[in-house]
Amino acid sequence: MTNVQILPERQQATPSLIFETLHRYQHTMALKAAIDLELFTHIAAGATTPAVIAARCAASERGIRILCDFLTILGFLRKSGSDYSLTRDSSLFLDQHSPAYAGSVVGFLSSPVTLDLFRDLAGVVRSGGPLNGSGHMLPDNDIWVEFANSMVPMIAPVADAVANAVAVPGRRLKVLDIAAGHGMFGISVARRNPQAEIVAVDWKNVLEVAERNAARAGVQDRFRGIPGSVFEVDIESRYDLVIVANFFHCFDVPTNIGLLKKVWTAMKPGGLLATVELVPNDDRISPAIAASFSMNMLGATNGGDAYTFPEFEGMFRAAGFDGSRMQLLEPLPHALILTAR
Amino acid sequence: MTNVQILPERQQATPSLIFETLHRYQHTMALKAAIDLELFTHIAAGATTPAVIAARCAASERGIRILCDFLTILGFLRKSGSDYSLTRDSSLFLDQHSPAYAGSVVGFLSSPVTLDLFRDLAGVVRSGGPLNGSGHMLPDNDIWVEFANSMVPMIAPVADAVANAVAVPGRRLKVLDIAAGHGMFGISVARRNPQAEIVAVDWKNVLEVAERNAARAGVQDRFRGIPGSVFEVDIESRYDLVIVANFFHCFDVPTNIGLLKKVWTAMKPGGLLATVELVPNDDRISPAIAASFSMNMLGATNGGDAYTFPEFEGMFRAAGFDGSRMQLLEPLPHALILTAR
Repeated sequence: MTNVQILPERQQATPSLIFETLHRYQHTMALKAAIDLELFTHIAAGATTPAVIAARCAASERGIRILCDFLTILGFLRKSGSDYSLTRDSSLFLDQHSPAYAGSVVGFLSSPVTLDLFRDLAGVVRSGGPLNGSGHMLPDNDIWVEFANSMVPMIAPVADAVANAVAVPGRRLKVLDIAAGHGMFGISVARRNPQAEIVAVDWKNVLEVAERNAARAGVQDRFRGIPGSVFEVDIESRYDLVIVANFFHCFDVPTNIGLLKKVWTAMKPGGLLATVELVPNDDRISPAIAASFSMNMLGATNGGDAYTFPEFEGMFRAAGFDGSRMQLLEPLPHALILTAR
Repeated sequence: MTNVQILPERQQATPSLIFETLHRYQHTMALKAAIDLELFTHIAAGATTPAVIAARCAASERGIRILCDFLTILGFLRKSGSDYSLTRDSSLFLDQHSPAYAGSVVGFLSSPVTLDLFRDLAGVVRSGGPLNGSGHMLPDNDIWVEFANSMVPMIAPVADAVANAVAVPGRRLKVLDIAAGHGMFGISVARRNPQAEIVAVDWKNVLEVAERNAARAGVQDRFRGIPGSVFEVDIESRYDLVIVANFFHCFDVPTNIGLLKKVWTAMKPGGLLATVELVPNDDRISPAIAASFSMNMLGATNGGDAYTFPEFEGMFRAAGFDGSRMQLLEPLPHALILTAR
């Protein structure tokens, strides 16, 4: 054998982070593929080896073995020998038979229409917004019906945490849920407070989803909709509580201040504005999930952003509101900002 | 202000890992966009604020600010106040004026033709291989010319580490570089050992890239090519050293054993086979970069894989080779397997 010299390890920069980052799109696609194949559901039902999982998924054994290893590396499966099993979270969110199944969230967030917003991201950065002119923000865009239908598993725990903070059981409440979508924020308040009456504003096609969810939750008698854009329709008045969840991030500051003035007018003195958002720290680079959310808004909206707490406070004060305070909903990544009228 | 009750933090499962994973394709696209915009190069040249960077990149300030924050979260930039600066690695690999600039690697690994292999990953897993029939493995596929042209910055330090281990300066060496691509493995040996003569096998269109690189390195007199598929052409004989870098992973075990038998015959007794690969541990889920590489091979090849060391040993022995030993090239993710003839 030829004599081999191995020098001691050298300090050498490596492009590993670059290499790794260039493959992260595969992480998204692997999770999407696993949902499409019902892989987690089959593992939950007792398939543990590549051969058996492949048979249940009607897929190749090579493909399943490689996908399962990849999902194990990503933290969605555990592996012991050549047997795979679900993690606690995969069991809860990725098995179709779990009540918290979030397959629809995966489908929505990894759908071609969402991914394609970022396909020419250099072009988006150059122009400052979506290349199709409006991203996801077209009026009556069916994507918001899909969003409303899809995002309930992800949003339900957030809505629950928010209702826990603002529903005030035992007190009569007139509640406005702005851009209600799936309706879960208002519905959660209605479930927790039997004297709460919910008015939900959203486009007509989206409101149908919210109304269906309200009926499922048994609160349809105290849930009614105002169809249309909240920027255009009469939103009524004398609200005790207004919920604006994951909506301000779609718009620029002047648009939000305009909306907030309309909201201020519609509220009772002493009423409460509850804003639910992913709120980065003032450095805009932490925490990672909230700070990264700006990128979503760059790809999907013309002026939206993940706003910091001081930026929200500035918008609220400019519209006439009093001081705000922020409550993190940990371990959820969302924050709840409570603002007095 | 309405009375607000905040219950103490509850233990609650969250779909955060799911949410985060569904956005990781944005990481890949952000790095690609930054290279397309020459963002790192402009920062290296003194642009530090969103406004100035945007002007130099001919891009919107909104887009640049959000992209720079995102790249900071990912570890490619540092942020202080609203000023951005390069990290050591970004400076080395992502500034066009650095000799180690890896923009071409980014371009290749995030090109639509590469990303599209994973666009319907469920379909790939079902069928067990690329949906276009052959992935990247078509003969004379121009993608390998692009690969050879693009990957030098990433592969140069690997080739250097390998040459350091196998070039044996002071000794006459006839070297075969199989599927040479950019030619950097053979070229690195030739640079380190003035008595080494390199024979490089690859498709004709790819060999032109290797020959150009050999001329640049000043070793063209000791570098010649055999055009064609290594599975088909006469590869000559009496080699002291055969280098097979990042090639076995493209094929299934029987194909590799067939190739190895041909290689064994072409080598001198006592010759050395040097295999360069990303080699996962036997568990196939660690280390992450090497183990994840299987997914690339699922998307791009019909039978390839990231093989473990025992799997390589099995193939080598089946072709008549003696024992092997593996040397990790840390901090590079690659391993070098040395096998005696």
